Amino acid sequence: MVVKSELKLIKSLQQKKYRNEHGLFVVEGKKTLEEVLGSKIKPYKLFALDPKSVTQKSIQTVQISSRELSQISSLKNPNGYLGVFYIPTSKAQTTSDWILVVDGIQDPGNLGTIIRLCDWFGVRDIICSLDTVDCYNPKVLQATMGSIARVNIKYTPLKEFLKKTQLPIYGTFMDGENINTSKLPKKGIVIMGNEGKGISRAVAQQCTHKLTIPQSGESTTESLNVASAAAILLHEIRR
Amino acid sequence: MVVKSELKLIKSLQQKKYRNEHGLFVVEGKKTLEEVLGSKIKPYKLFALDPKSVTQKSIQTVQISSRELSQISSLKNPNGYLGVFYIPTSKAQTTSDWILVVDGIQDPGNLGTIIRLCDWFGVRDIICSLDTVDCYNPKVLQATMGSIARVNIKYTPLKEFLKKTQLPIYGTFMDGENINTSKLPKKGIVIMGNEGKGISRAVAQQCTHKLTIPQSGESTTESLNVASAAAILLHEIRR
Repeated sequence: MVVKSELKLIKSLQQKKYRNEHGLFVVEGKKTLEEVLGSKIKPYKLFALDPKSVTQKSIQTVQISSRELSQISSLKNPNGYLGVFYIPTSKAQTTSDWILVVDGIQDPGNLGTIIRLCDWFGVRDIICSLDTVDCYNPKVLQATMGSIARVNIKYTPLKEFLKKTQLPIYGTFMDGENINTSKLPKKGIVIMGNEGKGISRAVAQQCTHKLTIPQSGESTTESLNVASAAAILLHEIRR
Repeated sequence: MVVKSELKLIKSLQQKKYRNEHGLFVVEGKKTLEEVLGSKIKPYKLFALDPKSVTQKSIQTVQISSRELSQISSLKNPNGYLGVFYIPTSKAQTTSDWILVVDGIQDPGNLGTIIRLCDWFGVRDIICSLDTVDCYNPKVLQATMGSIARVNIKYTPLKEFLKKTQLPIYGTFMDGENINTSKLPKKGIVIMGNEGKGISRAVAQQCTHKLTIPQSGESTTESLNVASAAAILLHEIRR
């Protein structure tokens, strides 16, 4: 049995406002939950249909009924476990590697995929503009497949952040240098823009280098999905 | 007013079984609908809240009430139009360019993104295994952003298809050749596998070349999302 006030608290964490107020976020989905449980992210409580099946002894585990679980879950088919964790404080960024900057991405699946890509390519620092979708949104977490536990994410006004950096700042534009022939440095900043509008005007002015991912075949009005573009950029950075 | 039997028919097209039975599929979403209307795909009927706003004169346009539209739409917020089109018959594949083969992809967003990538990189032919999600599924169509109108997609048993081809067959595996240093030919077949299981065993045996997209940073148990892997592979093919 879980007390009503606690059920209410956890349900409220589906909203960014309450996640920030309480400093907590919810993890569901087997793979993501396992990864976060095995990471340095501090657990608050784990709710389980069968607490005996939980092998991590260091976590306070609370038995929950399936009716209660479906009340607080954001999944259509909850899978028996729901973890609540403390939102980690972001660490200072590295100055010796690439940093990925997100400028206004709205789609949770896109941000989650980009976090997963950063993990794969060993880019540890992600800086997000304040209007980017929250990385502790359940759909973002789902798409990260647990990578959220291995990257350092900070939300901050981009203008000030970019002003302070000494690193070269790369963005993708329609009229940039061909990424296939441009020589990328060992460290820098790479910016991924909004799905519809691309990199915002103010941030574009702070870019020191413009890149283009060339299109093959017939030229159309099409664009690359931002997560696909991120895959190609990160691949080129590590090439 | 739309007659009841027609509403029932269109609603049934949300299911693959009925799409195949009637040879029809539904397009919603402004961008995708515009692209398909402007393509060679043959229209059946267009349903619109305001038929006067439709500028394409060559299409039979039927006025629909917002109540009827929400009955047949697969969207939470229908956007005033719903197009029904004839499923195009697939053309013969090229033998002078790359062909992308999909082996059991289940997630509609992943298949849609891959179709969009093929369009961007000018790969015109996509061959799907019979257990791949249907490309006329509303969520796939949404993710293609209209690219569906510019590629040639065929569902067929892969074993027979791969047996007949003279082209080199590339797949991605954990233990393949590093894609950064391998020299790719001007034409060939590239296979994208299932999200969880990768390329199926039978198809893997037919691959003539094994590739690997190298991971940077700490090695984890993680994998790349299949659409991200497709972005990198297609980029390398056209490099």
